[in-house]
Amino acid sequence: MTLAQSVLAGESLALARLLTQVENDSPEGRAALNELFPHTGRAHLIGVTGAPGTGKSSLVNRIALHFRKPPAGTPRRVAVLAVDPSSPFTGGAVLGDRVRMRDLAGDRGVFIRSMATRGSLGGLAHATAAMAQVFDAAGFDVVLIETVGAGQAEVDIARLAHTTLVVESPGLGDEIQAIKAGILEIADILVVNKADLPGVEHTERALKSMLDLAHPVEKVFLHHGQTMTIHAAGAEIGPLWVPPVQRTVSLDGSGVAELVEAIDLHAQHLRQSGEWGRRERARLEAELESLITGTLVAQFRLRVPEARYDEIVERLLRRELSPREAVEALLG
Amino acid sequence: MTLAQSVLAGESLALARLLTQVENDSPEGRAALNELFPHTGRAHLIGVTGAPGTGKSSLVNRIALHFRKPPAGTPRRVAVLAVDPSSPFTGGAVLGDRVRMRDLAGDRGVFIRSMATRGSLGGLAHATAAMAQVFDAAGFDVVLIETVGAGQAEVDIARLAHTTLVVESPGLGDEIQAIKAGILEIADILVVNKADLPGVEHTERALKSMLDLAHPVEKVFLHHGQTMTIHAAGAEIGPLWVPPVQRTVSLDGSGVAELVEAIDLHAQHLRQSGEWGRRERARLEAELESLITGTLVAQFRLRVPEARYDEIVERLLRRELSPREAVEALLG
Repeated sequence: MTLAQSVLAGESLALARLLTQVENDSPEGRAALNELFPHTGRAHLIGVTGAPGTGKSSLVNRIALHFRKPPAGTPRRVAVLAVDPSSPFTGGAVLGDRVRMRDLAGDRGVFIRSMATRGSLGGLAHATAAMAQVFDAAGFDVVLIETVGAGQAEVDIARLAHTTLVVESPGLGDEIQAIKAGILEIADILVVNKADLPGVEHTERALKSMLDLAHPVEKVFLHHGQTMTIHAAGAEIGPLWVPPVQRTVSLDGSGVAELVEAIDLHAQHLRQSGEWGRRERARLEAELESLITGTLVAQFRLRVPEARYDEIVERLLRRELSPREAVEALLG
Repeated sequence: MTLAQSVLAGESLALARLLTQVENDSPEGRAALNELFPHTGRAHLIGVTGAPGTGKSSLVNRIALHFRKPPAGTPRRVAVLAVDPSSPFTGGAVLGDRVRMRDLAGDRGVFIRSMATRGSLGGLAHATAAMAQVFDAAGFDVVLIETVGAGQAEVDIARLAHTTLVVESPGLGDEIQAIKAGILEIADILVVNKADLPGVEHTERALKSMLDLAHPVEKVFLHHGQTMTIHAAGAEIGPLWVPPVQRTVSLDGSGVAELVEAIDLHAQHLRQSGEWGRRERARLEAELESLITGTLVAQFRLRVPEARYDEIVERLLRRELSPREAVEALLG
């Protein structure tokens, strides 16, 4: 039995081993990804991002618990992929896992995996996508991808997700968190965690007014979180989603049921509007293009001897060749 | 006479025309860049970035004026390249130029050019680099590259510069500006503009403490703006630069002389430490790599018929091929 087959058969140890190979981009990992890919496409990928101190990790635990023990309906299998592009310490990630495991210990329907920085940002987004595919193929209904902050890495990783949660909390300098590069554009749901702290109304208000600025047209027609068909100048432009602002307290789990409801509503919205398919397509095309570029560059490196490349760089630095002439010299 | 030759001969109209061709990446623009490249490598490229409202543009004017009319020494020829990646309005840029021109009108030693968003971020950084090369070849001693904000575009553009100024001002929510993605890493000099406003001490203190956090080791040895050789574990690790915090009032020009002094000190530091050459090399290598990747992808698009590409994407979406198998099918 191949490692991929063991993963499809539900073996946890095989899953853990395969994730390591995929993270390291080993030949075995690549082969297994090929084998698993036909089994992907069913999981709901949920990105959760937010600054340190917002209680994001506990919230992710609460969401996972809620999926596992819903008040009604069938429990869903949950994978958590915690990505920390800023941390150079794998140790921290491991410790984090132990703390997490307490709540969910012994539950074979939950799998938690941490990833520290490895290589370039592109590499990180790539490895995250691949690991999410493994969870998807392994039959997890939900993959929670947790990232820290709001840098380019988070935005790249958020592009993988069907639904992206941006977590804020009162008293952290709310405007700072939310105003950051592109964070409002990637948020499908905004969460004000630690909603038992003073200042929650202020945070919520600040977020809502920023959302209104970001969605000026829909504001007229919609309440946050509702979807409806908008007619612009008489033409139907399709249902729109205005990110709702949800309050939660990860300490006692308040608001988590409503948050999961909003998550499910968003998935439903994506499917009904055709956006699910469009995001899927955009994601796979982007992955294909990034792999093509990487492969072309790798082939180039094999084709052009290093000494030749260095010689051209030296001539460029001596300004005997312009950058474009250097490219012509190298690519013919 | 070619356009490039006219530019080398100092003709302003030819320069304006060539900049347009370079911005549009036309064949004539590319040919001229090849012709001009041997004449580059002398200009001091200075990036100036900061949020809207910090008075950045007036400050850039003041810096340009100071270079043109120094209290002592030779006037330097100054080019200003104002890049606004966020603005979709070329109109705004044109108006901006008119306002700017008042101070510097009739001075043939100054050339001001605005650029609005054009194409992708990579494209913008690429066009900015190419236009800076044109100014460099045309004999401008200083090229001021002005950008708005602190997104990825600004970081990419800052990588072009020898010296990067990050402009803040009191009362704008200073922490917000400074904490943004990577802004402290790219700053060689921090400027608190509008230093006549209340709150300037607070802004300066906030910036300095953030700098101390970002440079914990040097803090022990250095005052801001000083350079010295650091010995770590007995080994010399070379002179370091701790970004100074300079106060300016662009309204009346206070502090601009000291700011220009700091700029010149930084250039001197770069040259003495060998960092000037390293930055030059890194910049040209990055430009070469980006051109190689772009050319490889363009060649791939020519080689692989669109219909074939679309067919492979469809098979990927139907999950008959994994992303890596799709790449193999396309690249053989």
